[in-house]
Amino acid sequence: MRSFTRKPDADPPAVAGNGLIDRRALLGRGAAIAGSLSIAPALATGAAAEPLKDGPWSLEVGTAIPSYQVPSRFEKQVVRSVDNPDNLPRNSRARTPHHQLQGIITPNGLHFTICHGGVPDIDPAQHKLVIHGLVKRPLVFTLEALARYPQTSRIGFVECGGNSAPMFSNEPLQENVQALHGLASCAEWTGVLLSTLLEETGIDPAAKWIIAEGADAPHLSRSVPLAKALDDAMIALYQNGERIQPGQGYPMRLWLPGYEGNMNVKYLRRLKLTTEPAMSYYESRTYAQILPNGKSYRFYFLQEVKSFITSPSPGHVLKEPGYYEISGIAYSGTGRITKVLVSADGGNSWAQAALQEPVLPKAFTRFRMPWRWDGSPAVLQSRAFDESGTMQPTRAEFVALRGQTTRPPSVLAFPSQHFNAITSWAVNTDGAVRHVYA
Amino acid sequence: MRSFTRKPDADPPAVAGNGLIDRRALLGRGAAIAGSLSIAPALATGAAAEPLKDGPWSLEVGTAIPSYQVPSRFEKQVVRSVDNPDNLPRNSRARTPHHQLQGIITPNGLHFTICHGGVPDIDPAQHKLVIHGLVKRPLVFTLEALARYPQTSRIGFVECGGNSAPMFSNEPLQENVQALHGLASCAEWTGVLLSTLLEETGIDPAAKWIIAEGADAPHLSRSVPLAKALDDAMIALYQNGERIQPGQGYPMRLWLPGYEGNMNVKYLRRLKLTTEPAMSYYESRTYAQILPNGKSYRFYFLQEVKSFITSPSPGHVLKEPGYYEISGIAYSGTGRITKVLVSADGGNSWAQAALQEPVLPKAFTRFRMPWRWDGSPAVLQSRAFDESGTMQPTRAEFVALRGQTTRPPSVLAFPSQHFNAITSWAVNTDGAVRHVYA
Repeated sequence: MRSFTRKPDADPPAVAGNGLIDRRALLGRGAAIAGSLSIAPALATGAAAEPLKDGPWSLEVGTAIPSYQVPSRFEKQVVRSVDNPDNLPRNSRARTPHHQLQGIITPNGLHFTICHGGVPDIDPAQHKLVIHGLVKRPLVFTLEALARYPQTSRIGFVECGGNSAPMFSNEPLQENVQALHGLASCAEWTGVLLSTLLEETGIDPAAKWIIAEGADAPHLSRSVPLAKALDDAMIALYQNGERIQPGQGYPMRLWLPGYEGNMNVKYLRRLKLTTEPAMSYYESRTYAQILPNGKSYRFYFLQEVKSFITSPSPGHVLKEPGYYEISGIAYSGTGRITKVLVSADGGNSWAQAALQEPVLPKAFTRFRMPWRWDGSPAVLQSRAFDESGTMQPTRAEFVALRGQTTRPPSVLAFPSQHFNAITSWAVNTDGAVRHVYA
Repeated sequence: MRSFTRKPDADPPAVAGNGLIDRRALLGRGAAIAGSLSIAPALATGAAAEPLKDGPWSLEVGTAIPSYQVPSRFEKQVVRSVDNPDNLPRNSRARTPHHQLQGIITPNGLHFTICHGGVPDIDPAQHKLVIHGLVKRPLVFTLEALARYPQTSRIGFVECGGNSAPMFSNEPLQENVQALHGLASCAEWTGVLLSTLLEETGIDPAAKWIIAEGADAPHLSRSVPLAKALDDAMIALYQNGERIQPGQGYPMRLWLPGYEGNMNVKYLRRLKLTTEPAMSYYESRTYAQILPNGKSYRFYFLQEVKSFITSPSPGHVLKEPGYYEISGIAYSGTGRITKVLVSADGGNSWAQAALQEPVLPKAFTRFRMPWRWDGSPAVLQSRAFDESGTMQPTRAEFVALRGQTTRPPSVLAFPSQHFNAITSWAVNTDGAVRHVYA
């Protein structure tokens, strides 16, 4: 049991430049820093009554409990940003507000969505999944039949291959983390492993690819290597416990942990085993990015190791010098995150962030680093490492390989995909946070 | 790579009586059971066109993407059951529909809620938390101040001490798992460890208890041992990534992992360190259950090891003999679940269920067991074990110690708390599922 005989003013030890400090000193039991954070104001002696003044909610009966609850009306600014609210005939995106969230689970209301023909209103009683092509026994699966197969749950991320596209801009766009990185989210998915269903159909040895097709109007289709289908692919039916959301493919989607979002075909109605890929629109035109060397990144599926700081981030204001927690998310389509480094001086010095347990493969990992801001300019960065030994590239390294928006006229397409380099936030002396390239 | 040269009709090995089978044989790559589950109908040769008939959703543009998404209209029956919809002046409960959910995360819309004076509508900008009493420096914490302290995320359950109260009935009530066990849910909570804030205030060595008080009209208060506060207690601010829901204590609650729900004071506004407990209403009257031996279970906090099968469960109907997955949730306020046994013959024989990774301490753990129902009567049970070595009691063992609803006239109160014994579901020959005592 601690007492107040400890020295209250010892400063916690620095672990890197510009104010990064040792989290273990903050959270270690009996650490010699009691009172030194000086964030909350002390209560004047005898003044307990004022802060406990009853609000109106303390003096009257509240409302009835609803059958399905939603966030408080005071949280109405915590929403996805939608870029096609009038449902014009083009793609629609809704981005996750990472700067307002915590932990690793994205709540179902705020999971990112991209639709190419609006959100379909599918009757699950009429929806079926067919597996055919190079199989022994083509089968038809209703939701009722799928419910009887062995289920698997797994916490993992989905990220659009075009997430972070604004980061290819030659100049840093003054946008927040939602606009820059909001096309990635993480949930607990439950469903049937595709390998289980392929056990049922049997597989012709000639099969090498599976063509997945959705039931919405665009009938989006993508080719998936059979090896991935037999590894960890899932027919996802539930999202954070309840049936998958309309924006995530209700009543079922293909989930390919760690592979670019567009391949995770929503409203899934057909899987056809074939010898060759389909060369469909989204694999031969979009998602076949042309590189500075003139080659195309066709069939480039993996979402590589990545991280970004969510707090503080643009839109947040540090109102005074003092202690703050730097926090963000890291993830890799390869597997587990092993390490995240954080810098407060634009990459001159780095310290290792705490990773929140459980650290799960191909899932968001929350990292945290305490920071004493002294009021001078700072540049905050994070850099993630995964269990394959891959580290997140610097922006300079990344641009050299993949290009940026202003390109030689000989190059037809703008690069806009698979951005995973370091993101930098500058903190001004007035406490405002802005996007910079550093 | 598998081919269809394998023997398709080998039956998977049994692991206990009345049809429990080896899940490893189902999920093992290359297992010799392809096609033997015989759940999904085979597609007649050349008939692929019929199941892929376009629904209306395949022929027209869908709707605009909303800024905050909610489940499909076809899921409107998946809701919490509310027992006080007209908000009459009494307690209100909303129960989680476990029979309709999967995995371990309860989505925020469906987390159970109990309120003693309705759901308050608290303005977070005006809400404060005071820590005072036997501390060195009484402090006042706003949400803005709390955001600067080191945060922690943890997936864990909350369960009402009165969950499963209908199980004390002398006869098995014909209710579903939502009505019987719906006052328990599991989420990822993020907030500040109470120990961190007590580092800031300092603790008088005389302090042994903390009195926690809510800001809603009932000002519910409970006494918490200081040792628990310094162990893993959290001031929870986020629930599955977004701000905590109104029904779970917006803008903040006390979370005491593994302790009875009522102690996890919602709308938390005050923590007072004291030498003695407050002997408040909910610890001296309710939640001080009188046992058959006449003693009272006062200050009995722990939610002990427990499990129940969620599928199949009452309301589900098995439409034909064949393979099904038995699935449910297990949890313990002591720590991790180490083992769940499942029986299909009323406890005569048991087999070990698969536990879904990650298995986290004081969190829901999803268990699964494949079952070949032959159409004869069956009684399904689950029995959980935790890392302390404690096992879930049988109903007979439990009732002997804690009593049931019909009591000798000398006993004043009905037992209604901390039920954690085995639950039994009978499957009739017609496939209907009902609650039995076995």
